[in-house]
This record gives sequence, structure tokens and C-alpha cells, in this order.
Amino acid sequence: MVVAPLHSRFLSFPRSVTLVEPEGHSPGATFPAGFLAGGIVAGIKESGRPDLGVLAVAPAWRTKACSAAVFTTNAFAAAPVKVNQTRCDLGHLVAVVVNSGNANACTGEEGMAVARAMQSSTADALGVRPEQVAVGSTGIIGVQLDAVMVGRGVKKAVESLGPDGGQEFNRSIMTTDRFPKICAGKVKTSAGTVRLGICAKGAGMIAPAMATMICVVTTDAELTPKQAQSVLRTAVAGSFNRVTVDGEMSTNDTVLFLASGASGVRMSTLALAEFGAALNALMLRLALMIVADGEGATKIMRLRVVGADTQKNAARVARAIGDSALVKTAMHGGDPNWGRIVSSAGAAMAGRTLPRVSLQLCGVTVVENGAACPVSRKDHAHMAAEMKLPEIDIRIDLGLGKASAELYFADMGHEYITINAEYHS
Amino acid sequence: MVVAPLHSRFLSFPRSVTLVEPEGHSPGATFPAGFLAGGIVAGIKESGRPDLGVLAVAPAWRTKACSAAVFTTNAFAAAPVKVNQTRCDLGHLVAVVVNSGNANACTGEEGMAVARAMQSSTADALGVRPEQVAVGSTGIIGVQLDAVMVGRGVKKAVESLGPDGGQEFNRSIMTTDRFPKICAGKVKTSAGTVRLGICAKGAGMIAPAMATMICVVTTDAELTPKQAQSVLRTAVAGSFNRVTVDGEMSTNDTVLFLASGASGVRMSTLALAEFGAALNALMLRLALMIVADGEGATKIMRLRVVGADTQKNAARVARAIGDSALVKTAMHGGDPNWGRIVSSAGAAMAGRTLPRVSLQLCGVTVVENGAACPVSRKDHAHMAAEMKLPEIDIRIDLGLGKASAELYFADMGHEYITINAEYHS
Repeated sequence: MVVAPLHSRFLSFPRSVTLVEPEGHSPGATFPAGFLAGGIVAGIKESGRPDLGVLAVAPAWRTKACSAAVFTTNAFAAAPVKVNQTRCDLGHLVAVVVNSGNANACTGEEGMAVARAMQSSTADALGVRPEQVAVGSTGIIGVQLDAVMVGRGVKKAVESLGPDGGQEFNRSIMTTDRFPKICAGKVKTSAGTVRLGICAKGAGMIAPAMATMICVVTTDAELTPKQAQSVLRTAVAGSFNRVTVDGEMSTNDTVLFLASGASGVRMSTLALAEFGAALNALMLRLALMIVADGEGATKIMRLRVVGADTQKNAARVARAIGDSALVKTAMHGGDPNWGRIVSSAGAAMAGRTLPRVSLQLCGVTVVENGAACPVSRKDHAHMAAEMKLPEIDIRIDLGLGKASAELYFADMGHEYITINAEYHS
Repeated sequence: MVVAPLHSRFLSFPRSVTLVEPEGHSPGATFPAGFLAGGIVAGIKESGRPDLGVLAVAPAWRTKACSAAVFTTNAFAAAPVKVNQTRCDLGHLVAVVVNSGNANACTGEEGMAVARAMQSSTADALGVRPEQVAVGSTGIIGVQLDAVMVGRGVKKAVESLGPDGGQEFNRSIMTTDRFPKICAGKVKTSAGTVRLGICAKGAGMIAPAMATMICVVTTDAELTPKQAQSVLRTAVAGSFNRVTVDGEMSTNDTVLFLASGASGVRMSTLALAEFGAALNALMLRLALMIVADGEGATKIMRLRVVGADTQKNAARVARAIGDSALVKTAMHGGDPNWGRIVSSAGAAMAGRTLPRVSLQLCGVTVVENGAACPVSRKDHAHMAAEMKLPEIDIRIDLGLGKASAELYFADMGHEYITINAEYHS
């Protein structure tokens, strides 16, 4: 198993967080107390790799547990997303069942029936109510998911549940991922120490307005559903919605958050804020892992857009730059081709003029007051050297106002074409 | 010289149009009577290839001539675009000077001075007023254009002017183009027969809201400035604004239209409509040549979005699909991966539901009422075979209303990465 190659200089952790290392062997979602997990081979993937996982709050904590969720806004939301939105008690989930290899998207009424059956068979096997079980699917679109295969897989997965199953669960939700996105840590809060675990499936179709296709977050903190939803929304906005690989928003994007309450640490307002900051930091770490695993990606760019007149324009400019194929390929080539960056920003602000724009690439000012500015030989050498590194810093000041946005994006290399042109529907 | 490989089945010409063949030797902008053109080596391109061209109305027709223009809306419009917008009499242009190899964009006051000098030196050499000369630049961004080099080049280009210089002019505006975008034809109108010539520089940074970076259109029809502007706007909307290669809008996009009046054919309302249809058809032909020459492109997709609730949503869905790197790479691979098409459409319509959506790929219905539908073995074989062809037809019906949009886009292959990662700023 490849270990995530990410020790990003873009990340800073609150001092209250202690990560569990080594990452490649992180217990992930079962690090917090009160969870059981497992992942098995159901036969959905032709490769014979694990493709169905179940994560559940341990029986003793099921009445105390609470949850929260965030879903894709794609107009073609997949069947499992619709089931979660219409047939789940999202504040009181106690289990999650996820399959990989088939997205159960664009599958009509038949797909809805399979998603409902997946939910109810998991509930039956666990002895809980169907509305306490969330469903997730990731993989190809438009192919019916085999209900019998899923039914058998669910039984097998529930039988495999164990307190150390976080890794197996994570493996079962992966598709084209080159390395697992999993991390766990202890968080010291003023109310006491709690644990956090996160795992995600994510490569391809990663963009703001929901990044990873499936992400499951666990904690043993004692939360109310309202608290859970509040910290989750903020953390998603500050992490997954700040990354883009190829500008796509998937039909299946889902973030599920389960709190077992097994630590017995009840969250005060202050403790919740501390916990939220830790959650955001860990989720951003995972989000950057997903960017680093973008199809064909070799670099991560941090883009800061400042001086925008409105928040909306800041975000629009950030997305225009981060999703520009010309910018992404230039970054791949390691060339300080800033002309493409200002051109993309200009396209996003069509009809305006930006006479005071300035641009810093790797800390070197290359554009000031709307025009290229002289760069000393030393600065140019510094910039050229930095451009070869796996992390590149870009800052553009639109010179219009005080709004800003931050976006992390991947470069685009040959492997992107190879993977996507050869991926078979 | 490579001849444009385009005999697209997506194109249909009004019967009134007779193209001048063979295309590779099309006289282009000097096919209509009353024009002189030339292109020379000014030394701007390191390659030593032609890089500066002048096109002018012949002296006898300068008082009768009229013109029109459409420019990029990019917030970082290049110096020549600004000069055209602020220092030209756009209804009465009689000449165009264009350099390739340097876009004169993001060059501040110094760049503005060079663009103004380029305009006035061309005017001096031709014996016309500066405001009668439009300026164009294409190439790299953020590098100062050498005023002395341009001044010498302008003189040389004006000396080279001749009635058959359309091809030389066209060669001088090309950059990374693999083949020339040039065509010419006779148009029969109810007022009489007139001639049309078009040439364009275009590869890279091609997207709606202005496609090609520089396009020059000539005719010997007798038009008023108002007529010229009206037919040009309509034709740009129906051609260049309906293509996308990589979703980029350039800082320099410019379409210039010069009418010499040398045919003596004055346009009635009916004749103008006939002329406009021909202009639109020829410009769409050129626009498709530009798509076919997209960096790394091997195919052209025609996408028709119908059944949208509003025109804006139709266009938004079309762009989301046409600019999706996942869709473009799937098309490159020749795989009928329609899941990516509906997913992109769904992302563009975030927050809505589209239960009645249907999708046809190469004429085969693959999605109906929002779900994948069974495809017969025969239809599947037909679709698979069609997907290997250089032109692919896609039609999506959103099932919401009556608005529609049409977009032509290129696939994305390895060469796109190679060209753009290695292009040096």
C-alpha cells in the first residue's frame, strides 16, 4: 500500500491536534471509541478488490449517537444520495454502507429500489431501523447495481465488523485512488480530549461544491445533531469546497459525520469551536491528499485571490484559474507562464477593467498595476526553482476591494489523459 | 502547407454560396475586389517565420469602404484591443495591421505606446488617418513588443502589399496553427453577386464569448457601417461564439470586418439577410477549422442542448459539457461514456432535478426520463463505430422547456498536454 506523500507546507494544525502516525496504518474511522467497521469483496468490481464496506456505531452507543451529512447539489443526484435525503434521519444515523465499482447513478426507479434494499438489508443485519442507515455508492454511472450481489455483500460485511476495521472499510470504498485517504487524531478541547477519524474515496471529479465522492468522518465526542451539522458544514466549506482537480461535480458526492459519544466528553460552545477547528484542519489535510491524487497530478497549487469587490467574484476568479486547462498544463510544465493566470482571471471578470491587478508567483511579484514588472535575475532564478517543486504558491490581488478566496488545485499531466481516455464506461 | 482537413458533415452552405477551391490555395482576404495585402518577417518570432501583416482597402475604394468589429470582453484586454476600442473609427476602417509572436498584453503604458505607434506608422505608410487603422497582436503575454522592430516591419509590409497578398497576410498572423484557416467564396444575393474572404489565427484559448484571437473578414459588397456591424454581430454569435476548445477566453480576441464596396452591389434588406446567412456559414466553417486545430484535438463534437427552461441555462449546460475535461478525454478515447455528459449537465443545473432528461449519442438514445435505457446490440455497435469517427453528435434534452443551444467542441488528447506544458512563457 502506498502511503500518502503529503506533508504539505500549506497545512498547519492547531496545537491541540495530535495525529496518529504512521499514516499508512492509520486506523481511520475506527480510531474514535464506539465504532465498528469492515470491508469485503462483494463481487461488484471486476478486479476482485474489496468493494463493499459497513461502518456502524457499536451497539452500546447507538442511542447516544448523532450525525450530520452534506450532499452534492448535482441535478442528477444518484439513487443513494436521494435515499439519504428522503429516507434517512440524518441527525441520528448509526451506520453507513458504501459500495465502490458502481455509482448507482442515472439508474432510475430500479436503482432507487436497489439503494433502498441496500439500506434496509444493512439495517436488518445490524438490528437497527432503515432510516438510521446512510447509503453511498461510487464508480461508474448508468449501470444497474446487482441487488442480489449487494444483499450478500452486506451480510458478509456486517459479519466482518470489528473495532479495528477502519482500514478495511476505507479500502472497500476506493476506486482509482493511488493511495488511501485516511487519517486520525486526538483533539484536546477545553471540555476534554476526543478522537477524530476520517476516510475518503477521492480521485477524479473533484471540485468545489463538494469535493470527494464519499467521505466518512467519525468522532467519539458527545454532540447534538445541531452541533454536528454546524461543525460539519463549516469544515466542508473550509476544506473540500476549497479544492479542485478537474472542475467536475459528481452525482454522488457525500460527506457523512457520525459521533458515537463514547468519550463521554460533552461539547461546550468553546470546546465545539476548538473541535471544529481541528475537524477543519484534518478535513483540509484529506482534501489536499485528494488533490495530490488527482488523475495525472504531480503538483498542488495554492491560489489566493485577494482584493476582490465581492466574495462571489473572488470565488469566480479562483475557480476560473484553478479550472483552466492552460494554467494547469503550464504548472505541470513548471513554467512561470503567468500570462495564462491573468488571462483566466480577466475572462472571469469579463466586461470589467482591472488596472490595479498584481500577481505574485512563488512570492515573486511578476505583475503590478496591470502590467508585467521587471523581475531581477535572482528573483527569476528563485521562481524557476520553486516552480519545479511539488507545491506552488500563487497570489493575485484584483485591486478592487477586500473580498478574498482560497483554492487548492492540481496540475494536469499526461496521465490525466491516459486515465480518462481509457476509463471504460 | 497542410490543407485544412475539414469537410464537416456538421456544415451546410446556403445554395447561394460558391466556395473557391482548393482551400489550401484560397486567396482569402484578397478574393473580394478592392483589397491589398501582404505579410513579411519583422523578426518578432524567434523562428524567423512571417510575423507581421497588413491588409488595406485599395486607394480607389477608401472613401466608399466601411467596417465593423467585435472584441474580447476579457478584463485584461490587450493594448491593441484597447487602441481599437478607443482610437479607431470602427465604422470606417480601411486597414488592419497584425503581428504574431507577441500578444502585447499585460504590457501597461509601454505596450499602449507601441500599439499606438504600430497604428500610426501603418497609417503614415498608407497615407490614411490613424483612426482608420485597426491593430492586432497574437502570441505570448507580458513581454514588451519591440517598437523599432514593429516600425521597420510595418514599412516592409506596406511595401509588399499586393492584390494577391491574402495568403501571405494569413501566414503572418499564424502562431501554433497546424494549418491555415482561410476561405473565400462568391455569394449570390438578390441585389447581385458579391465576394467574401476570411482568414483567422486560431489555436489555443478558443472559447465562446469570442473564439479566435484574430479574424479578418473582407467583402466587396457595398454596406453601411450599421449594416456591417449588424451582420457581423449575428455571424459571430452563430459561429465563433458556438465553439470551444479549452474554455479559455483570450485577452486579444478580435474580429474585424472590412467592406470595400468595389462590387458596386448595394445591399437591400433582403440581400443583406442573404449575405448575412452566407457570412455566418463561412465563419462557422472557419470556426470549425479552429476547433479541428485545437491543441491535441482529433475530433469535433456537435452538442445540441434542447428542452432548457431558459436560454441562459441551455448555454450553461452546453458550456459545462463542452468544457468538461472528463467529457473531452472520454471523447478522445472514443468511449460512449455518457455518464460524464449527464454529470456535467447536472453540475451546471445544481440544485434542480431533471427527471425527464434524455440523451442521444450518435443518434442512439442512451438516457430517457433520467435513467439509462436499454440499448440494442445493433445500436450499441453503431454507436461504438460512430464514436471512432472524427465527428461525434451529442443531443441532450433537459425536458424543462423550449430553449436550446448549440456548441462545437474538441476532444482533449495527449498533445494538448505536450503543447501546453512545453509552451514557454
